[in-house]
Amino acid sequence: MIRISFEDVVAELTRVLEGLGFSGPRARRSATLFAETHRDGVASHGLNRFPRFVRQVKAGVVRPDAEPVCAARFGPWEQWDGQLGPGNLNAVAATDRAIALAGEHGLGLVALRNTNHWMRGGTYGWLAARAGLAFMGWTNTTPNMPPWGTITSKLGNTPVIVAIPCGDRPVVLDVAMSQFSYGKMETLHLRGELLPMPGGYDEGGHLTADPGAILETMRPLPTGYWKGAGLSLVFDLLGAILSGGQTAHQIGRQSEEFGLSQVFVAFDVGRTEGADAVSRVVSAVIDDLHTAVPAADGSAARYPGEQVLSTRAENSRLGIPVDDAVWDAIRAMR
Amino acid sequence: MIRISFEDVVAELTRVLEGLGFSGPRARRSATLFAETHRDGVASHGLNRFPRFVRQVKAGVVRPDAEPVCAARFGPWEQWDGQLGPGNLNAVAATDRAIALAGEHGLGLVALRNTNHWMRGGTYGWLAARAGLAFMGWTNTTPNMPPWGTITSKLGNTPVIVAIPCGDRPVVLDVAMSQFSYGKMETLHLRGELLPMPGGYDEGGHLTADPGAILETMRPLPTGYWKGAGLSLVFDLLGAILSGGQTAHQIGRQSEEFGLSQVFVAFDVGRTEGADAVSRVVSAVIDDLHTAVPAADGSAARYPGEQVLSTRAENSRLGIPVDDAVWDAIRAMR
Repeated sequence: MIRISFEDVVAELTRVLEGLGFSGPRARRSATLFAETHRDGVASHGLNRFPRFVRQVKAGVVRPDAEPVCAARFGPWEQWDGQLGPGNLNAVAATDRAIALAGEHGLGLVALRNTNHWMRGGTYGWLAARAGLAFMGWTNTTPNMPPWGTITSKLGNTPVIVAIPCGDRPVVLDVAMSQFSYGKMETLHLRGELLPMPGGYDEGGHLTADPGAILETMRPLPTGYWKGAGLSLVFDLLGAILSGGQTAHQIGRQSEEFGLSQVFVAFDVGRTEGADAVSRVVSAVIDDLHTAVPAADGSAARYPGEQVLSTRAENSRLGIPVDDAVWDAIRAMR
Repeated sequence: MIRISFEDVVAELTRVLEGLGFSGPRARRSATLFAETHRDGVASHGLNRFPRFVRQVKAGVVRPDAEPVCAARFGPWEQWDGQLGPGNLNAVAATDRAIALAGEHGLGLVALRNTNHWMRGGTYGWLAARAGLAFMGWTNTTPNMPPWGTITSKLGNTPVIVAIPCGDRPVVLDVAMSQFSYGKMETLHLRGELLPMPGGYDEGGHLTADPGAILETMRPLPTGYWKGAGLSLVFDLLGAILSGGQTAHQIGRQSEEFGLSQVFVAFDVGRTEGADAVSRVVSAVIDDLHTAVPAADGSAARYPGEQVLSTRAENSRLGIPVDDAVWDAIRAMR
């Protein structure tokens, strides 16, 4: 593990993306999103994911300079076509547009079809919360999880994001509907570690905490068993219908994951009583949460997004911790 | 267990509610909602809950003829004050208003404060789906679940409803953010049965499938551990902020549960390609889901709401199965 400054990471990724045909400003914007994600502690969707992103650009699956276009307007709800552009740039554009619609209507919903993996979903919650808006968004994925009671991958893990503004300590939840993400399982498997609790089924159909066994069967546990499976299904359907885009079922017929359907909803919550009133409500709840008695030494109540702030501060000060092999691979990219 | 016809159940509950000061039409409407809930297989929020509802009316916590009033309008998003009226009647009014707003704006959001327990949340999803709209809604509750890593009840279990229209077989998800509802745990405890998997902690801080032990500690497992705890928190905050109402933290300071905050969002999804196109998308996904290979004999992929249809049909034919003691208690109410 080596520490690289934020600026050096952005410069290196920008160089690679420009070489792939991204215009200068778009290369820099996308590179910055990858760097911010890694700096915030989500390596799996930061630099660790970058080589796969590059491969998808080279394969023509992700189109560097394609930008989303508005396909239909229904007042506060708009449908956009992502034209298979880079998922993170498309998602930022959709979030910005949802924020603008919320400024006009009180709330705004952008349903984006024909787009690509948005990398860290929390990014768009942080973006809206920084602008003083509440946010809800989700994306479908290729099928990677069996419906409850079955062994066939039919559902995606459908990450869901909800963000609530609160000055410089917003609440930002970013949860997929599998109990553990594939990124997390791959990381622990490489380190030879177990999951903290059973996360799926092994070849014999038994619950296991061995991430390697789950990666083989592709039978991760849904978050809360039948509940996460149900949430995955309904958000997949709702996103596809609102956007006029593909369901996970349709995405699964392709040779790889592209053409996703995503939803971005922004709520102009400051409109009612002002941003200060919102912050007071959130702060009172968080302060109360922190008084909960820990179940064990060292455990404590944390609100979603809380840990990100300290990770971000540390990595901003010391540099972003990058796996040597990942950094070497990126530096070698021509 | 005895079987009572739907009409007899409605007549009996209507009689009781009229005696409590409900006007005739409102008594009948509320009675019908309780009867439909029980007929659909959710006894815990049907007749089994009715005596507690009656007690809250008698205590003045639920006000029989209070109706919600509009407190603020922001285009497609409106704030309503429930004036502590009956939760199910308030929630139907809010759903109807969200549907009307969706007809006008493409989507409609009603944030309802100062209301009461809405009984079965799925009711409002079925209502919207029957009208051809997609729906998302949630309610906060009094604190009944500890934040992950702690032992103090600070979070509600925050039921979330998502419904997708599809002719006469809509997808209707109704899930609380505790792995098992208190109603379910109470039912199994009375029968001396265990939960199908661990659902919370016992006095010694160990995971247990004994519902009685969990009812004592009030430490149910959140759905998906930290994930359900996070979802509960953000939906509680979002509902309180959108409605200008109370958070779970504030509700927990009262002597009992009232003055809840709820959100009702309706999406006029037929507006894009028509209702038939929506049904085709949903049917294709459901048909594919049903091809998933069962994990064990007798298990099968089911979509949320699927089982309700057969339960509803059976109980409509044979009568609603009611616990003898519950029925006797209701018949004795004067």
